[in-house]
Amino acid sequence: MSPTEPVRFLTGITTTGTPHLGNYVGALRPAVEASRRPGTENFYFLADYHALIKCDEPARVQRSTLEIAACWLAIGLDPEQVFFYRQSDIREITELTWLLTCVTGKGLLNRAHAYKAQVDKNAAAAVDPDSEVTAGLFMYPVLMAADILMFKAHKIPVGRDQVQHIEMARDIASSFNHLYGEHLVLPEAAIDDSVALLPGTDGRKMSKSYDNVIALFAPREQLRRQIAGIVTDSSAPGEPKRVEGSALFQIYEAFASREDTDKLRHAYADGISWADAKQMLFEHIDGEIGPMRERYDALVGNPAEIERILLRGADKARALAAPLMAELKDAVGLRNLASQAKAAKKKSAKAALPSFKQYRESDGLHYFKLVDAGGRLLAQSAGFASPQEAGRAVAQLKQGELAVGPALQLAGGVSREDLESAIAALLNA
Amino acid sequence: MSPTEPVRFLTGITTTGTPHLGNYVGALRPAVEASRRPGTENFYFLADYHALIKCDEPARVQRSTLEIAACWLAIGLDPEQVFFYRQSDIREITELTWLLTCVTGKGLLNRAHAYKAQVDKNAAAAVDPDSEVTAGLFMYPVLMAADILMFKAHKIPVGRDQVQHIEMARDIASSFNHLYGEHLVLPEAAIDDSVALLPGTDGRKMSKSYDNVIALFAPREQLRRQIAGIVTDSSAPGEPKRVEGSALFQIYEAFASREDTDKLRHAYADGISWADAKQMLFEHIDGEIGPMRERYDALVGNPAEIERILLRGADKARALAAPLMAELKDAVGLRNLASQAKAAKKKSAKAALPSFKQYRESDGLHYFKLVDAGGRLLAQSAGFASPQEAGRAVAQLKQGELAVGPALQLAGGVSREDLESAIAALLNA
Repeated sequence: MSPTEPVRFLTGITTTGTPHLGNYVGALRPAVEASRRPGTENFYFLADYHALIKCDEPARVQRSTLEIAACWLAIGLDPEQVFFYRQSDIREITELTWLLTCVTGKGLLNRAHAYKAQVDKNAAAAVDPDSEVTAGLFMYPVLMAADILMFKAHKIPVGRDQVQHIEMARDIASSFNHLYGEHLVLPEAAIDDSVALLPGTDGRKMSKSYDNVIALFAPREQLRRQIAGIVTDSSAPGEPKRVEGSALFQIYEAFASREDTDKLRHAYADGISWADAKQMLFEHIDGEIGPMRERYDALVGNPAEIERILLRGADKARALAAPLMAELKDAVGLRNLASQAKAAKKKSAKAALPSFKQYRESDGLHYFKLVDAGGRLLAQSAGFASPQEAGRAVAQLKQGELAVGPALQLAGGVSREDLESAIAALLNA
Repeated sequence: MSPTEPVRFLTGITTTGTPHLGNYVGALRPAVEASRRPGTENFYFLADYHALIKCDEPARVQRSTLEIAACWLAIGLDPEQVFFYRQSDIREITELTWLLTCVTGKGLLNRAHAYKAQVDKNAAAAVDPDSEVTAGLFMYPVLMAADILMFKAHKIPVGRDQVQHIEMARDIASSFNHLYGEHLVLPEAAIDDSVALLPGTDGRKMSKSYDNVIALFAPREQLRRQIAGIVTDSSAPGEPKRVEGSALFQIYEAFASREDTDKLRHAYADGISWADAKQMLFEHIDGEIGPMRERYDALVGNPAEIERILLRGADKARALAAPLMAELKDAVGLRNLASQAKAAKKKSAKAALPSFKQYRESDGLHYFKLVDAGGRLLAQSAGFASPQEAGRAVAQLKQGELAVGPALQLAGGVSREDLESAIAALLNA
């Protein structure tokens, strides 16, 4: 990507559940904030094809799609400013999934954590290794790669447990590019460790599987009840309280300003009653999400409006996906038969030019090389820490700002003049 | 399928090669003849998504698509009478592939012959079991199931080596129907053992891998040369010749009438020279395929016309695929959010009715059962040899022609009256 091109971020949420406060603090709120950063393009999608992997309840998938879409919008995602769409509306996604399936080694998928976890579980239960494993679970990384590569996304905000999937998307994109030319952008995981995990009502990480969640947009009185259910120690009103290990305090911290957090810290020391502390927490959360809840309730009550927004988002996303898919189908040979002569001609004109190839080696570093039209190596770069750095070096080289030296070596039998004329040919093309 | 509904046959050819005489005799000619049978609907498609599994040469895929399409048309396939399309033009195919992926057990795919053959090869070479195995090879049976199930095909003409894939498509369809209701038709393999395998020029089965093929639509003089290259014994002109084991004779037989074949048999006994026998064979083959070759050459020279025919075929095929895909997406929960209320209402009206479920057990027999709206079993059939027989029994039961007896047993606690009123409710719905 060139320095002036916006950085593309892409985030998907699987449509099997209803967001809770932990999702809000850990994913939804930061994502909506991030959507307003200048110099970025942001993609948010409802991953309903992914939902089918783990959920065979149609009504639940449908309801969850509605609720998650309403959540994004209620929290403040502006569908005019971002790409906001439902995965299954982008027909190119499954087409790309098949193209990528054909360039993905099965061995790569054998090593996926989610698949291996189930195999380990089966081994522990002394049943067939693939017991309860669907092809959907096994192929999930390829679908995810299609989600990412379809939009040439650069950065994928994920938790550490998802980094492997981004690496697999990179590998799959590299395989495709290696076979068919440089069509796909290699994505990177964007891990934000500053986002705290919100504790649930029992103090463990808030998670549906622990049954300790506080619903994000439940009715106000339910929010009050769920907050009242947060486990505390048995210290009486008037007794000083510890903020360390207090789930209530940590949740408050996620919603309050630093000033307000300090106030609660003092109140803890001064022996505030748990009932009063819970009331403070309730008021803070309700103050932030109350207006969103009103919008949420209105949106969920108007599914036709959400449908309309999603279809418009799909049009916008498909305006990017359709031309890339046409390019990729052409690249693999799924072509309009009538365009044959023209395509061949175009190719031969292009083939006379040298080209840069960017790739990653097993040492984890990013390299580029310049090869001539016949595939002969002209120059080889040193390793860079990121594809962006390698890309910048390519740009410098094209602008005459990178000379042969430690970062760039000539291939055997190639002179500096050969290199310069190759770059000139590229720039003049 | 009801007795009056046409039987649907479906045939695909992978677009990686150029048809030879063996393909013509073994597949193309019988398929085109079959396309004219009354009471049938026939689907022929260019399997270009399958081509990507084994071929990463775009130009070859494109060229083969053109040549195979031209072959079908030159031989006499009438695109107005049949469904003739290119797989990758049917966008619903990859969408269905993903839906099926989610209901397919990975264990099923582990047992596929083509995959196991590669694993065995790797074991023999003492390399990783999944060496050289792409996810495309592994997932091929799911794509093939989508090809078949997309058009509710009943019969798939295949060689014995392909029967397993049809069984897998049945299994996958059953899984989908079990989870989401009876949406998909369970296909059957149609094996025609009467179609002889054509020997190649060296006497072994004609196959590109043996390098013994006679091209179907090569120029006339090349046909003559390739026929001249058929291996014979060294008997001199005038010496009687054996028809047994004579590749030349077998090829002749595949093209000549019984009368003409008898003439050659006598000529063999009378000591015809190999040169004269080859001339007779050449004239017979050229007599049959000469006019087709002219059409073929004209078609290959006009790719825009073939493209137009294929796109029209895709429209025709998609007129069937699109509504089924919409139905299937709705079934799994990928729904228009605005249609929610309506759908729920329809469902609850439908849910009050009993329903028939047809399925296959591990004994290989086909069963049906009648369950009430709440899922309670009302009656259970005996096993039938084919899904058609089971379907006929359901039809008989609905018409009052099948009574409780050996073919149908009431579930515990269910009376004949319960059964009768359930069927009446169904008929009145």
